[in-house]
Amino acid sequence: MSSPSNSSSSFSVHALPGLEIIQEGDDVGTRICQASQDSGFNLQNGDILVIAQTIVSRAEGRIVNLTTVTPSKKALELAQKLERRPELVEVILQSSRRVVRAEQGHLIVETPHGFVCANAGVDSSNVPNENSVTLLPENPDDSAEKIRQTILELCDVDVAVIISDTHGRPFREGAVNVAIGTSGLLPLKNYIGLKDLFGYELRSTKVAVADELASAAELLMGEADEGNAVIIIRDYRYEKGTASARLLVREAERDIFRR
Amino acid sequence: MSSPSNSSSSFSVHALPGLEIIQEGDDVGTRICQASQDSGFNLQNGDILVIAQTIVSRAEGRIVNLTTVTPSKKALELAQKLERRPELVEVILQSSRRVVRAEQGHLIVETPHGFVCANAGVDSSNVPNENSVTLLPENPDDSAEKIRQTILELCDVDVAVIISDTHGRPFREGAVNVAIGTSGLLPLKNYIGLKDLFGYELRSTKVAVADELASAAELLMGEADEGNAVIIIRDYRYEKGTASARLLVREAERDIFRR
Repeated sequence: MSSPSNSSSSFSVHALPGLEIIQEGDDVGTRICQASQDSGFNLQNGDILVIAQTIVSRAEGRIVNLTTVTPSKKALELAQKLERRPELVEVILQSSRRVVRAEQGHLIVETPHGFVCANAGVDSSNVPNENSVTLLPENPDDSAEKIRQTILELCDVDVAVIISDTHGRPFREGAVNVAIGTSGLLPLKNYIGLKDLFGYELRSTKVAVADELASAAELLMGEADEGNAVIIIRDYRYEKGTASARLLVREAERDIFRR
Repeated sequence: MSSPSNSSSSFSVHALPGLEIIQEGDDVGTRICQASQDSGFNLQNGDILVIAQTIVSRAEGRIVNLTTVTPSKKALELAQKLERRPELVEVILQSSRRVVRAEQGHLIVETPHGFVCANAGVDSSNVPNENSVTLLPENPDDSAEKIRQTILELCDVDVAVIISDTHGRPFREGAVNVAIGTSGLLPLKNYIGLKDLFGYELRSTKVAVADELASAAELLMGEADEGNAVIIIRDYRYEKGTASARLLVREAERDIFRR
């Protein structure tokens, strides 16, 4: 045997096969169960499903046609400064509660959920029309919970669900996948009080497990193929519970880089 | 079969069993090969090894005893402002080329490698003395390359190596693991020119694959057990090549949050 199977020392990551293109009005949980049954890839209790935000948004009809948008004065000014399409900037502003930075072509905002990200997560890829953009789900935790409940009912398996999005970061090149909605697992792991190898308290008190799971899943999502929009993480021992992905958002007053 | 084994649609993550505590002067590559042979967990060509920075630093003797340190005037001032130990602040300043933020107890700096992180990666956990701290490896890419070559020679397998560290982040709670040294793989994946599901160009042009691999590995490293300081990622199709983890560092002038 070349690999130990002890679930505490290994886990595996799989793309769910057989998922067809999700259309507006589709029920994502139902479509995942169908793909599971059609492909013979059976979901199991304790699986973590990481689902790309774009298919959830599309299913929920969170699509805006930019030709129907009238830019505000603020959007026109920002669009000129950033050399961006004014209608797109208007949609981003409508999806934001605050602009954090508008420089060098970048528009970094705080979304109504509290996420700090480029363009409020408004995305012009993986939509069926070059004038269409997707918005983030209105409440990604609720989206995750609904999918989790549907899978529990239809497939009779108890999974955790993470809705993920790809975010750029200060200081480091390259985007990474993070969790924007969670259901069935605690997004942060708390090491407070745990001792290190030599008996001293650990330095990092909290680890963003849900973000690390989202990043692990992105490694298979990468190529924008609908078949890879749903990733299953198996045999990872996570902490079950009810908690919002908003726990992953640092409060502004504790964030020395927000200002 | 409940899980497909196609290597393009799944991968697995394993803690290397049997690794004993790494001491100053140990050769990490040799110790990994020994653990592999002793435990029967055979390394394979194409495996990615993610190695916690702390054991590499310890092996390389990157340890400072704080009782031997004399704080400078600047260190004394910062220590008072941040309510930190002056000797520790002095070591952090000596390991930094620039202070980025010193607020609310946090000391965020640029390391000589270019990484922007708390405390210059100076770490007081997982060292055998409460007055000892570890510094980052002087050149983590070289550390990774040396380990890779040793494993090629001793175990006759061609692996990629990532040296990882746990970083906090602006905007989001919880630390995540990132890559600070790489050998044998390209740390960034470039999507420029790739088309999305509907034929349009993808939004995110680069993904920080090495950081996502480091994050995936942290999910098993978590509990500070030396047995989990080396993680093997198997069957993930990465792009081989020679490139520094410094490619993951955003240049200061392109970083709208550095100033």
